[in-house]
Amino acid sequence: MPYYRRHLFFCENQREEGEPCCARFGASELRQYAMERCKALGIFGPGGVRVQRAGCLGRCDEAPVAVVYPDGVWYTYVDRSDIDEIVERHLVGGEVVERLRLPDEPPAR
Amino acid sequence: MPYYRRHLFFCENQREEGEPCCARFGASELRQYAMERCKALGIFGPGGVRVQRAGCLGRCDEAPVAVVYPDGVWYTYVDRSDIDEIVERHLVGGEVVERLRLPDEPPAR
Repeated sequence: MPYYRRHLFFCENQREEGEPCCARFGASELRQYAMERCKALGIFGPGGVRVQRAGCLGRCDEAPVAVVYPDGVWYTYVDRSDIDEIVERHLVGGEVVERLRLPDEPPAR
Repeated sequence: MPYYRRHLFFCENQREEGEPCCARFGASELRQYAMERCKALGIFGPGGVRVQRAGCLGRCDEAPVAVVYPDGVWYTYVDRSDIDEIVERHLVGGEVVERLRLPDEPPAR
């Protein structure tokens, strides 16, 4: 059993004025909301789910972004209803929320 | 192909004086060193490896800790030679460094 069955990282990076960044889209408040939802559902902690902040995840042009590991599924989101869907369908149910999913493939180098 | 082939998160959490925490063990400096090594090896970036800071990873009693996803392998480390080993053997070579590995299993709840 992995230490966390699913580990959700929210990018909360703040860039200079005018540059795209996740902090500008409520990342911190929505990360906090996701954590509270997981606690309320009784899935938060070792053996379950962890939700947490991260530094820049490196996908600023697609902000705001979050990633679920070990699945390696990347999401964007707008509001609490998007977070509800990620928590309930993916973190609890193991189902990828295709509507909010970002491409797996990195851009051509 | 996943966005990052391997994604290494360093816990850099700072807790109150006297409590165990990763920030006390040079996490920030050694994360920076790991990133520079990956850049020097030409593996840093989309399609390759990302090394970054994270908030508290929740394993304070085992500090300092870092985790490699999507593998879900947890490490502790002491110095630059440990970081070299994680970078060269795991991030480049895909081999788990058992010497530095933390248990997968969460503590009994």
